[in-house]
Amino acid sequence: MRNSIDLGRSVSKEDYKKELPELRSRLLEAQRALRTAGIRVLIIIEGLDGSGRAEVVNKLHEWLDPRGLQTHTFWNPSDEELERPAFWRFWRVLPGAGEIALFLGGWYREIITDATHERIKNGDLDARLTPILALEAMLASDRTLILKFWYHLPSEVQEQRLKEEHSTPDDRWPSIKAAIKGREALAQWAERILRHSDTADAPWFSIEAEDVRYRDLATGYTLLEGIEKSLAVQNNRRSADIPPPEPALPLAASARITVLDHVDLSANISKSSYDTELADMQNEIRSLLWRAHALGISTYLVFEGWDAAGKGGTIRKLTAGMDARLYRVIPYGAPSSHELAHHYLWRFWRQVPRAGRVAIFDRSWYGRVLVERVEGFASQAEWQRAYHDINEFEEQLVNHKGLLLKFWLHISPEEQLRRFEDRQNTPWKNYKITPDDWRNREKRPAYELAVNEMVLRTDTEFAPWHLVANENKEFGRLRVLEIVRDTLKKRVKAAE
Amino acid sequence: MRNSIDLGRSVSKEDYKKELPELRSRLLEAQRALRTAGIRVLIIIEGLDGSGRAEVVNKLHEWLDPRGLQTHTFWNPSDEELERPAFWRFWRVLPGAGEIALFLGGWYREIITDATHERIKNGDLDARLTPILALEAMLASDRTLILKFWYHLPSEVQEQRLKEEHSTPDDRWPSIKAAIKGREALAQWAERILRHSDTADAPWFSIEAEDVRYRDLATGYTLLEGIEKSLAVQNNRRSADIPPPEPALPLAASARITVLDHVDLSANISKSSYDTELADMQNEIRSLLWRAHALGISTYLVFEGWDAAGKGGTIRKLTAGMDARLYRVIPYGAPSSHELAHHYLWRFWRQVPRAGRVAIFDRSWYGRVLVERVEGFASQAEWQRAYHDINEFEEQLVNHKGLLLKFWLHISPEEQLRRFEDRQNTPWKNYKITPDDWRNREKRPAYELAVNEMVLRTDTEFAPWHLVANENKEFGRLRVLEIVRDTLKKRVKAAE
Repeated sequence: MRNSIDLGRSVSKEDYKKELPELRSRLLEAQRALRTAGIRVLIIIEGLDGSGRAEVVNKLHEWLDPRGLQTHTFWNPSDEELERPAFWRFWRVLPGAGEIALFLGGWYREIITDATHERIKNGDLDARLTPILALEAMLASDRTLILKFWYHLPSEVQEQRLKEEHSTPDDRWPSIKAAIKGREALAQWAERILRHSDTADAPWFSIEAEDVRYRDLATGYTLLEGIEKSLAVQNNRRSADIPPPEPALPLAASARITVLDHVDLSANISKSSYDTELADMQNEIRSLLWRAHALGISTYLVFEGWDAAGKGGTIRKLTAGMDARLYRVIPYGAPSSHELAHHYLWRFWRQVPRAGRVAIFDRSWYGRVLVERVEGFASQAEWQRAYHDINEFEEQLVNHKGLLLKFWLHISPEEQLRRFEDRQNTPWKNYKITPDDWRNREKRPAYELAVNEMVLRTDTEFAPWHLVANENKEFGRLRVLEIVRDTLKKRVKAAE
Repeated sequence: MRNSIDLGRSVSKEDYKKELPELRSRLLEAQRALRTAGIRVLIIIEGLDGSGRAEVVNKLHEWLDPRGLQTHTFWNPSDEELERPAFWRFWRVLPGAGEIALFLGGWYREIITDATHERIKNGDLDARLTPILALEAMLASDRTLILKFWYHLPSEVQEQRLKEEHSTPDDRWPSIKAAIKGREALAQWAERILRHSDTADAPWFSIEAEDVRYRDLATGYTLLEGIEKSLAVQNNRRSADIPPPEPALPLAASARITVLDHVDLSANISKSSYDTELADMQNEIRSLLWRAHALGISTYLVFEGWDAAGKGGTIRKLTAGMDARLYRVIPYGAPSSHELAHHYLWRFWRQVPRAGRVAIFDRSWYGRVLVERVEGFASQAEWQRAYHDINEFEEQLVNHKGLLLKFWLHISPEEQLRRFEDRQNTPWKNYKITPDDWRNREKRPAYELAVNEMVLRTDTEFAPWHLVANENKEFGRLRVLEIVRDTLKKRVKAAE
């Protein structure tokens, strides 16, 4: 990718005037169509200082309908941003369905800045690009059109432009000298950064910025074509969406054993020791969490399990000893229309807590590969992609000083039936049981296979699954608290 | 209000067991009903250390359906919170329609803490309570049920409890001694704080916390009754909503002169000087904004005006010279369902920028007293309340180092017709004209009266209105930029 070649392309004033009305009309029409289609558009604007990135943004604001169009710049991160994984600040402003977001800068900015200041190492680059490419692929596969523009200039033109900009008394811009020096350093890296991140999911468009009319029209046309093509694909989506292969099994029951069959449901505990053990562990967890808070370690606890497996009760025993300022329980049901307008991970990213806090997820992102898979709410391609997306997401949480534990609470179908009936017959438990629960119960074999695959694909060294027998509630609760306590203790001690 | 009287109320274990099932069932039923009715519930939990506020929260989480229930604690404010008016952190987590928010602490916490540490002065209290009471009244009048609980204990019981809490190795809690000392100081103030903020909109409920069962049941019953009553009112709302009086006018045209009639629409400018003047002002504004940024002064620019009055074009001339990292243009149309679930000011609070930034509102909260009033989207009671709410909101923006300017762009009906026709005939302007615009045009007399009242009621010394003739676009644009520049310059110079 020879992004630095300046061919001297230009557009005359007359041609500009001739072409503009048609381009604008079509852009507006495309924008309307993508609103109907629910496609999201993300435009990343990058390039050399003086290439007029901000002017391009202004031009697009002039040409497009401002409703549903938003520009975001990523400058000094706030402490709320610094206390969370690096991509949180991007997730919070990603476009929703039918919206266009302009990122002036964005996730390449830091790498480019480091390149400009020669702070980048050779082996470093790909390691830094990996999560970026994963994010772009994730978004692109979920109705997001990503276009990345790189604006460049011959060096003498750049120098001239920077001088003009600096004629106004504004000392915040880097000095011209520094910019020119940075240019040389950047030149060695820009090619490589762009080449390594130029994917079919999110291509780079390198645009000459010397002639302003050419720069703006070329941007407009590229955007227009991008939207129009993506609309065409969208309209044919179902036919184009060829499902990836999935594991197929022999029919014999012995060939269908799952990880759940290895959980000992007879596990029990003496009632007499339950109360004191519980209180002791609650106290320990309480003070461990304060130590984790002091260290800035965030704790993420994910609870999944059969309906009536006791998620709510377990969570209450867990939080009973916690300081309310430190934790938050976030229950997840079916997504709202507002949430559906975004990538499915968006509603979980939103709840990533500040450093040193505890987030407890009562159901979670695993819904994608459980209920959405079994009930067909997600296409096969969608839920199969999710394993990879989820592992990426969890790795980012853990890498940002996070401790992530995932629990599957397991009960037998017989015990589930007993609890359903109890719920049916207890007035204040009544709301917990719905026709859906009975329906899901009938699909248990399909769910068992889904749970099995989920555990196999997402049980990572950084975020392990714990399958806990909760047939006996006292046993299950103590076991969960024990795991939380032991893992926390190890982690806190290692960090102190 | 004698909040510190301990009567020794209690509930026996047997009575508790007897009453609980019925209470829980009714609470769940009430919660379901308020979801249907779209009522929001805000519960503020306050009281003495050791009174078990966090336990009450846990209990409510046990009793209620966790979906749509969220607890918020307000601890060290983040820099994102510190850079905005104090109430922003509360606005960002206010409950939506059908949701319940538990504030463990909240907007009384700071006053109570200051009282505990004897940092509060006599004349101070009411000044500090005023914005709180205004906010509560604003929310209460808009489908929000507010319940405030104050938990208290005899001092010897408190001492005992604190000692127990401190038996676990947790050094983050204030020492018992300090808590007891604080109690004495607080005692002198708590009565007064509660009394002054005990309103019909948001009453305080003082609850004895010595007997835990009494404490929890009393809380549950109070909450239940609050929701049930509010549902009853809600169902009769339309009949109960007696519209307040509004100004009535004689029919003579001379009696219906408005502020708009005093705007000189013939104002003009020579084309020759336009370009240079514009560029000069853009440059000045650009560097003034950087100085404002360094000082942490935020700028809010509100644009209202007739359809086709040139808001978009004026904003583009204004932002053409600004650094894209500093400003954001936020266009407002009809609210989404997500936004409708909240108080109408919520979607504007969300966009309050960090310190030193510029927010440009293309249409704004004034929609409430303009389109919503004229088209009947808001009831008369609703839009009449809005003047006061808006003034409160704007005062908070300004008091937090804000500069707020409001522009009404004015054109004659004839000029508007000309521009409508131009839009109709220019393909890429076509999207800007809708049947609504033609309909609004016919209602111009009603809008003129609405504009007049809006200006009279919300033209404050801290946030003045500027009625700018934009019949001649060049004149209007220069005038707006001039006002922005002059006000900014004055403000920046005064602060430097």
